[in-house]
Amino acid sequence: MAKQPELDDFRVPYFDDGKKKPLFSLGDFDPAAKPFSSGSKEADRARLSVIGMQLDNLQERLHAQRKRRVLLVLQGMDTSGKDGTIRAVFHEVDPLGLRIVPFKAPTPVELAHDFLWRVHSRVPAAGELTIFNRSHYEDLLVPTVLGELDAQAFERRCAQIRQFEEMLSYSGTTILKCMLHISKDEQRTRLQARIDDPNKHWKFDVSDLEARKQWDAYQSAYCDALAATSTEYAPWYVIPADSKTHRNVMVAELLLRTLDALKLEYPPAKESLKGVKVE
Amino acid sequence: MAKQPELDDFRVPYFDDGKKKPLFSLGDFDPAAKPFSSGSKEADRARLSVIGMQLDNLQERLHAQRKRRVLLVLQGMDTSGKDGTIRAVFHEVDPLGLRIVPFKAPTPVELAHDFLWRVHSRVPAAGELTIFNRSHYEDLLVPTVLGELDAQAFERRCAQIRQFEEMLSYSGTTILKCMLHISKDEQRTRLQARIDDPNKHWKFDVSDLEARKQWDAYQSAYCDALAATSTEYAPWYVIPADSKTHRNVMVAELLLRTLDALKLEYPPAKESLKGVKVE
Repeated sequence: MAKQPELDDFRVPYFDDGKKKPLFSLGDFDPAAKPFSSGSKEADRARLSVIGMQLDNLQERLHAQRKRRVLLVLQGMDTSGKDGTIRAVFHEVDPLGLRIVPFKAPTPVELAHDFLWRVHSRVPAAGELTIFNRSHYEDLLVPTVLGELDAQAFERRCAQIRQFEEMLSYSGTTILKCMLHISKDEQRTRLQARIDDPNKHWKFDVSDLEARKQWDAYQSAYCDALAATSTEYAPWYVIPADSKTHRNVMVAELLLRTLDALKLEYPPAKESLKGVKVE
Repeated sequence: MAKQPELDDFRVPYFDDGKKKPLFSLGDFDPAAKPFSSGSKEADRARLSVIGMQLDNLQERLHAQRKRRVLLVLQGMDTSGKDGTIRAVFHEVDPLGLRIVPFKAPTPVELAHDFLWRVHSRVPAAGELTIFNRSHYEDLLVPTVLGELDAQAFERRCAQIRQFEEMLSYSGTTILKCMLHISKDEQRTRLQARIDDPNKHWKFDVSDLEARKQWDAYQSAYCDALAATSTEYAPWYVIPADSKTHRNVMVAELLLRTLDALKLEYPPAKESLKGVKVE
């Protein structure tokens, strides 16, 4: 009997300073795979809805307890579905409990600081669930592909990220990082659909096609970046994302497991409120 | 035949500098009224869901166009349902398109600035829909009830708010302000329910009961504040809110009408994308 896939099969191996070569290749993961689908879209959506309600309950406990912080980082090529994942996974979660932080191309003020500056000011506070829609990893990937970051500078930046994330983790932040993995063919289909619908042109810039031309360079940069920054305190997961339904279910399952592991409870009842009758 | 109620029947009359006495009294509005309910909870919820999807579409256009800004201000006594309104009205709206800003008791840094400082830094940018969960109106209401703001200081602060909101409006911000109006009896029921459920104690502080003791003073302060700050560019509406379903439907209807009036359209198609085939 074939082994059932497990979430951890999609976890990027933890960084090991002693090894020279990453033990992992993005190419080993099939973007079209649907290991966590039931086979029925309808059943998957029902499952997503159930997980959504569980996430809503866990988020309320997180907020009530006001101790832990949770950070979900979403990365992926254009059209890989970062926006769609957020919408689908958090549909049942109280919007009061979410903070979604999109990172665009850095502004002049942001560029005048170190690359972690704008990120640090947006990390979750106690009781918060924050989603980074793109992140500090852009500052690793883009300059690498543009040839602005040599191997040594790349390694240094990876080390800085590891230290930064370790510090966040040490101060009570649970970090989960997902790379939405689509194929080049799937991207073509999705970009073309945007071009063919005039109401979607606002989402699109001709320069997006330039990034597509660098597809292989980006895949390679992703591979190196993930291998150098997947750690016990901030693991990376590869999410096969050609199927939107599969992508949503898998990210939701991962987040559910992560929050479940925190054993979040409501704070103890207040003695001072015992038996109080409101007048 | 009785006149059908209209949304504008619940609008606080616009401020008129020439008049000494406000033309309006909160007491004239029945918190238990359900003028915009169909009579069936089920039908109201279905209606809310339909409006939610329309709001989602309008929010996407707002975002795509990146010109107008929309600010919804929610005020009301403890347990009046500000959180619940946000959750219900925006359930169908993409969380990526919302920014919810809760204002708590001011921090020392915030207190070291003028009362509009923390508010100004959080107003919506072009294309944004922002919800203020409490607002600068707290700085009018609380000090008034505590006796820290005399009549002259109150009037000055109201004038400052009018000028601030007029400036926001002039720079492209549509402002809608809703006062969730509950009865003192309904508040008792809701506070008691929180006290009786230990898992809800975290939402509760014994000092909340102090504010309840000042119920009449707060109603009076609300009445004066609304009368002095309801303007054509930033109108106040009184939302009968003892019924949660009614409250949600009415706020949703108001917001829908407000966004509809903006005639939001997707930006024109980009000529540069015409006929482009993705390789």
